[in-house]
Amino acid sequence: MSHLRALSLFGEGARFHHVGLGVASIAEVCPGAEVHHETAQRVGLAFTRIDGLPVELLEAAGERSPIARSVQDGPRLLHLCYEVPDLEAALAACRAHGLHRLGPPVPTEVFQGRRVVWVYGKLLGLFELLEE
Amino acid sequence: MSHLRALSLFGEGARFHHVGLGVASIAEVCPGAEVHHETAQRVGLAFTRIDGLPVELLEAAGERSPIARSVQDGPRLLHLCYEVPDLEAALAACRAHGLHRLGPPVPTEVFQGRRVVWVYGKLLGLFELLEE
Repeated sequence: MSHLRALSLFGEGARFHHVGLGVASIAEVCPGAEVHHETAQRVGLAFTRIDGLPVELLEAAGERSPIARSVQDGPRLLHLCYEVPDLEAALAACRAHGLHRLGPPVPTEVFQGRRVVWVYGKLLGLFELLEE
Repeated sequence: MSHLRALSLFGEGARFHHVGLGVASIAEVCPGAEVHHETAQRVGLAFTRIDGLPVELLEAAGERSPIARSVQDGPRLLHLCYEVPDLEAALAACRAHGLHRLGPPVPTEVFQGRRVVWVYGKLLGLFELLEE
């Protein structure tokens, strides 16, 4: 098996936090689940682990949800999230790998006000950065 | 943050192995990378870690590759892979969660002959199971 050099995109102290999985309905996956509604982002979400792996389940809240089109043909893995000690340092680190932020860092409801920022690169796709 | 009950899909001993990330060109992501060509499956692949997370990079080998359409609009997360002690036991376990195999278990080149099987469920999507 060929193993490449490891990639460090987000700087020192960055570590995997969860993978985002878009689904048609969180309640269908986990009956009775308590779904958190991020009204501003038009998504519902809930955290689970799938055989040990931290997974954020996401569902569209209405047709205008940014993930509505992504999940219309079935479940879809949407992003990787990393926890980082400092958002600005992580943004500077990943810029060198062609990753650019999609907007300013924003405080989240679901992570008790901790800030997140989204980055995208045409080589590697979509990542969420969550400040420690 | 709402945390759901953990999901156990693949039975005792199952553990996360890697996430599959389809890209336009592995060489563009990792210049000089040694790409393994799975001729029968029409994909090129290489393993790396992105800030600690094991990632399998995949690229289409020609227009008839099964992943060609998936990656035509940009990088895309394609599957989660779990290592399991026994493929048949894992298949039986995940059937209860609506996951069905997409074909018979097959020996792989890239994992030194170890068998893999692909499963798909309309609630949770695509998974690869790799026998220990």
